[in-house]
Amino acid sequence: MSAIEQLARDARLASVSLQSVTNEQKNEALLRIKQVLAERKNDIFAANELDKQLAEEQVQAGKLSNALFKRLDICKGDKFETILSGVSDITKLDDPSKKVTMATKLDNDLSLYRVTVPVGVLLTIFEARPEVVVNISCLALKSGNAVILKGGKEATHTNAKLAAVIQDALASLPASNPIPKTAVQIVETREDISALLDLDRYIDMVVPRGSNSLVKYIQNNTRIPVLGHADGICSTFLDKEVDLNKALRIVVDAKTSYPAACNSTEQLLVHQELLQKDTFSKVAQALIDAGVTLKCDAASHAYLQHHHAGAGDKVQAAGDEDYDTEFLDHVIAVKVVADVDGAVTHINDHGSKHTDAILTENAQTADWFMTRVDAAGCYWNASTRFADGFRYGFGAEVGVSTNKTHARGPVGLDGLVIYKYRLYGNGNITSEYGPGKKEYLHQPIAPSDYQL
Amino acid sequence: MSAIEQLARDARLASVSLQSVTNEQKNEALLRIKQVLAERKNDIFAANELDKQLAEEQVQAGKLSNALFKRLDICKGDKFETILSGVSDITKLDDPSKKVTMATKLDNDLSLYRVTVPVGVLLTIFEARPEVVVNISCLALKSGNAVILKGGKEATHTNAKLAAVIQDALASLPASNPIPKTAVQIVETREDISALLDLDRYIDMVVPRGSNSLVKYIQNNTRIPVLGHADGICSTFLDKEVDLNKALRIVVDAKTSYPAACNSTEQLLVHQELLQKDTFSKVAQALIDAGVTLKCDAASHAYLQHHHAGAGDKVQAAGDEDYDTEFLDHVIAVKVVADVDGAVTHINDHGSKHTDAILTENAQTADWFMTRVDAAGCYWNASTRFADGFRYGFGAEVGVSTNKTHARGPVGLDGLVIYKYRLYGNGNITSEYGPGKKEYLHQPIAPSDYQL
Repeated sequence: MSAIEQLARDARLASVSLQSVTNEQKNEALLRIKQVLAERKNDIFAANELDKQLAEEQVQAGKLSNALFKRLDICKGDKFETILSGVSDITKLDDPSKKVTMATKLDNDLSLYRVTVPVGVLLTIFEARPEVVVNISCLALKSGNAVILKGGKEATHTNAKLAAVIQDALASLPASNPIPKTAVQIVETREDISALLDLDRYIDMVVPRGSNSLVKYIQNNTRIPVLGHADGICSTFLDKEVDLNKALRIVVDAKTSYPAACNSTEQLLVHQELLQKDTFSKVAQALIDAGVTLKCDAASHAYLQHHHAGAGDKVQAAGDEDYDTEFLDHVIAVKVVADVDGAVTHINDHGSKHTDAILTENAQTADWFMTRVDAAGCYWNASTRFADGFRYGFGAEVGVSTNKTHARGPVGLDGLVIYKYRLYGNGNITSEYGPGKKEYLHQPIAPSDYQL
Repeated sequence: MSAIEQLARDARLASVSLQSVTNEQKNEALLRIKQVLAERKNDIFAANELDKQLAEEQVQAGKLSNALFKRLDICKGDKFETILSGVSDITKLDDPSKKVTMATKLDNDLSLYRVTVPVGVLLTIFEARPEVVVNISCLALKSGNAVILKGGKEATHTNAKLAAVIQDALASLPASNPIPKTAVQIVETREDISALLDLDRYIDMVVPRGSNSLVKYIQNNTRIPVLGHADGICSTFLDKEVDLNKALRIVVDAKTSYPAACNSTEQLLVHQELLQKDTFSKVAQALIDAGVTLKCDAASHAYLQHHHAGAGDKVQAAGDEDYDTEFLDHVIAVKVVADVDGAVTHINDHGSKHTDAILTENAQTADWFMTRVDAAGCYWNASTRFADGFRYGFGAEVGVSTNKTHARGPVGLDGLVIYKYRLYGNGNITSEYGPGKKEYLHQPIAPSDYQL
């Protein structure tokens, strides 16, 4: 067995131990991690300084962007304190495992329960920000999963130090706490990742956190289910019955409050009747004032060239590719559609099933749109930027999923558990049931009668 | 766009229409399908006769097994009536879509709902039994999904006829019912399947129904999520505190009541202390009496050779591969383990995460086993053969899933829906919330206050 296979098998064995751990034991581990991180702050900062020093040379050589460099720093301001308080915040969340989601009496002495359980072993691959080591380790432990981490190479020393400190913390737990230190492990090379992506025998789910290209690479190179999303191409549709004030507020927030986020609106769809009013004109002006460049289809381009002749290069003709692009910048694609069905068709063809909004005062039109658009989030008169685990009230965010099996949309701890069926019998055999024999009861079991 | 891509896109467009369909309209479609199937019985039987005639030549040429040939026949006995009543049974099931599984007030004018919705487009690939065309089409429609079918080539004429009849039934629905006939489509060639397995843009889930090799081929050749399982290697563990009578009943039922089923027990794990009592001896004798061959590890082999010298070739030495084999026959692998942890380790290493049972009178040991075994079903004192959608009370079975994301275990209609988040606002924008600004309420919404 290769070293990397042994590591994956250790994670699998750790995940078996984690199945029996109580919520109190998981919280005890998290608080111990917080404590040891605080105690070893100087070691961690020294590792981070080393990474920053090496990265600075890369920046000067033009091999690393300034934005990536900034994300590397965990020493500045209250960043480290924020990381620590994030750990104790996770202890306050509900345990997502051991919840009964179905209970049925099959016979008087045969009871069936569907109970949430940890998924098993997670593989997390991320870039730049070293605090992900702490955050994802704690989310994994709280949900009862073992985790294997792989960070960006610019943060190698910081990541390794953080993982070592977490392992030391787990190793120092009292003997009564069965969480092994192999519940959190780290790997460093691309070769390790290639090998791990093949080990669907030991690894249950991959959680990539990073760029589109990272996510796409992983999706195309493993049979293991991937939790996350590559593109975030969100649309906002201005219906003919839109309220102008809501539109002005929402479109500007959805595009400009954080353009680099996956939940920012990348496409503005406009009902054709709005070209006969001043609604579209005012919304376009608000975007231009906010520094946004509009990439327009023929109809909207002609309209804006006529009504906003002074907008200069803030109004441009769109190419076909602009309707399949995640700009992540002060740029928005604009398209005029005949009606709500035109908007639905465009979104289902060009969107990424992430989050799409309709702005209208007509409840029936809103319901039609929200029912027929195939996306994890369908919003009525609200900004697409609400697609976020914290804003949804999950208290934590593992990622945003565009999957259509299991977790979808912003994913909290619930996305890291699945269920198993537990059947409690008394010697029951299937051949005693059937036509002319015993009949199944199929009665729901009330929570007060659970025998778990 | 190729013909097959057009077909997949038609399915995708049909699935959008299906999102808006009511439960009444879905049931109307199912009953119409039942009616037209009955009306066209002669056509269907003629197609089936043609397939059987061609297949018979294959059987005589030794190119097709008799078992496969028998599955082909939908004319004999009350088979066709059973198919028809299966259709009306599905109308009686609850609509699995449009269920609210979470509802939270984010602000006084901002409400978030998590609602179940159809997955979208299903691709079902199956072998031999033509009735799957009817069954899976009806399950897909009832859950609001479009479906593309591909059956075995021995049943080409029957499958094509059944699909054509279903499409005719859908085409003859009143104009008030928006289900298009492209909601059910069929393809015939292997090349079509290769092309479809690449179209993750249009197809959301593959549901294979057939042999291990079929399922494995599909799992290895698509990025689309696959609902199902390849192997069904189920184990039954006889703990030292087992009740002999329950063991005798359960082990024989689990192994012999239908050996070709995926939920039959393939491995018998025996606590070592049972070799000092006569428990194992009696269980082994019951299996031998039922015609089962025992493939034994060294400890159990020595024991049985000593105590059951007359068993002849019903007791054999096992090879390593026998502990990773789905026999689907009157054969069982036997292994002696030191304790419950030995059983758990063996199952987690060699099982297929399908269904595993412990037989014991000790509740604590049972809980330990059921918690630590990583399988869709963990049973206490019951036969693994209970792993079945009808026995679980789902009223229908799409398949049995060993996936650890989304549906797991026997899958009914619930496995064909996923949720979407619906957010109802009043012009809300994210930049108004945060420290020093508006605070999120994150209050659960009571069902009586739902605004859906």
